[in-house]
Amino acid sequence: MNEFALIDRYFRRAVSDKAVRLSIGDDGAVIAPSPGCDLVFSVDMLVEGRHFLAGVDPVTLGHKTLAVNLSDMAAMGATPRWALLAGALPDFDEVWLRGFTQGLFALADRFGVALIGGDTTRGPRNLCLTIIGEVPAGTAIKRSGARPDDDVYVSGVLGDAALALSVLQGSARIADAEFAKARARLETPEPRVALGERLRGVATAAIDVSDGLTGDLQHILDASGVGASIDVARIPRSPCLDAMLGGAARDAGLASMLGGGDDYELCFTATVSLREAIAAIARDVDVPVTRVGSITAVPGLVVRDERGVPLPLLPRSFDHFG
Amino acid sequence: MNEFALIDRYFRRAVSDKAVRLSIGDDGAVIAPSPGCDLVFSVDMLVEGRHFLAGVDPVTLGHKTLAVNLSDMAAMGATPRWALLAGALPDFDEVWLRGFTQGLFALADRFGVALIGGDTTRGPRNLCLTIIGEVPAGTAIKRSGARPDDDVYVSGVLGDAALALSVLQGSARIADAEFAKARARLETPEPRVALGERLRGVATAAIDVSDGLTGDLQHILDASGVGASIDVARIPRSPCLDAMLGGAARDAGLASMLGGGDDYELCFTATVSLREAIAAIARDVDVPVTRVGSITAVPGLVVRDERGVPLPLLPRSFDHFG
Repeated sequence: MNEFALIDRYFRRAVSDKAVRLSIGDDGAVIAPSPGCDLVFSVDMLVEGRHFLAGVDPVTLGHKTLAVNLSDMAAMGATPRWALLAGALPDFDEVWLRGFTQGLFALADRFGVALIGGDTTRGPRNLCLTIIGEVPAGTAIKRSGARPDDDVYVSGVLGDAALALSVLQGSARIADAEFAKARARLETPEPRVALGERLRGVATAAIDVSDGLTGDLQHILDASGVGASIDVARIPRSPCLDAMLGGAARDAGLASMLGGGDDYELCFTATVSLREAIAAIARDVDVPVTRVGSITAVPGLVVRDERGVPLPLLPRSFDHFG
Repeated sequence: MNEFALIDRYFRRAVSDKAVRLSIGDDGAVIAPSPGCDLVFSVDMLVEGRHFLAGVDPVTLGHKTLAVNLSDMAAMGATPRWALLAGALPDFDEVWLRGFTQGLFALADRFGVALIGGDTTRGPRNLCLTIIGEVPAGTAIKRSGARPDDDVYVSGVLGDAALALSVLQGSARIADAEFAKARARLETPEPRVALGERLRGVATAAIDVSDGLTGDLQHILDASGVGASIDVARIPRSPCLDAMLGGAARDAGLASMLGGGDDYELCFTATVSLREAIAAIARDVDVPVTRVGSITAVPGLVVRDERGVPLPLLPRSFDHFG
């Protein structure tokens, strides 16, 4: 099978989206954007051995390759529409391709995303997905809009993905049932797209938590020229992580919850006056949303422990070139 | 230096394009597309050891990473506007980064392309660029519009890039002065953007010659449901390749000219009635354009040698999974 037959068999599908004027199979894909909308673009590159372990289930990898990009759309308040996928593969492995595309398209179909183009080549396994979304003109949620006294919120629970990775890497041990749940958070994260869309015009700033809460929240603070104070006690976590925080593994638990990557939850800010509106949105989209602290005029991020004492050191965010 | 400082220092620049509402530095980039235009998307992934040799001058690599994508825009008749770059790098090498971004931005500036987003990670060197262009709605040039009796054209000259690669790999030898010219074609191809824009509403089909003329023209034939007959004698080539065709290295010369990759010229079709218009366009944009044959109703590609005899075998196009 050659490169073009591979694309035909595994990646080319009928596209029902009428905005797609030309899909896979030409030098470029052609889209008629929705009038009155801005377009939002993001790209993520996943490298074997760095973003995913060699031998990971290709179905979950297909899911995650798209999910991490959908999460960026959620953080912008954008509705994801179209994707392009470039991939380097070490070999032509039909079992892998079937699994990967199954996971990818299952998630794409759930969110109405059409794969409109891409590139395939041989090389060390590397998956690079570009996502394109739309927002009504001028409504994209930026990192730069947080203002003093705004509330700081987090969706879902934090830290389970990092905990699962620690177990897979042999540096932590937890019960099998807890591990299964945490591993699902690591391998098949659920992008908070519906929440992000509802936060347009509501949140003052947003980011997705992909590198760890403290590092990602710091990006909002830097872009907005503000600080924040958040409370460990309020940060949403699973029962398993909660138990770690109360015991001998407290430091590892804190590191996973505050500095772990791969959560793909949203961290966002909003004025105090919108607390009830945000609670209603959370109910509507069926995603837990927790208020974890406040924006401060003074720069810097303060994380207070259960007794209100600031943590002396914050876990470092993941940094590929640190 | 961490990942974010690296992006700030090497990739983040002031963007003067007013359509760019939000550039590098958030979860997504935001663009206000031009009213009445379709958007055209393409992505190319370049892998070290496959698309470029380890140790290649990073300045030329930066040029080529963007040039191959601009060439796709040219083939669609699109005006390139914005780009996202994802890159895996084996190490943090400031000399490499300075050179790469110098080559990339020099070409981007020439074509008015703004880098609006990206991703950086560690990994085997891999560069994945997504390009976004615009065309007046409905005017993108497709592969599928070629009709019987249309002329087949090629821009520039073909085969020099493949010839240079053969020399670098030790399978061919040519004079130093000829090699320098051919190597420039391989390492710093000139995308035919202005020609592509002028071919909107003129060409019936177009493709960029990146995998070899016969393979790429075959894509037009497949998409259009037609055949073609082209003449070796008419295919534009450099004096060096011309000399090979007349001597002992004829087969290698034919393989480079018909089946070599990396030319990044345009192959396009147009009705016979537009011969003068196309000659005028070629003069206006200062790019040689040569008529090499005709579209036929009968499927299949026939390549005739200098005596009019069909070649019994056509060189295979480059195929990453063949």
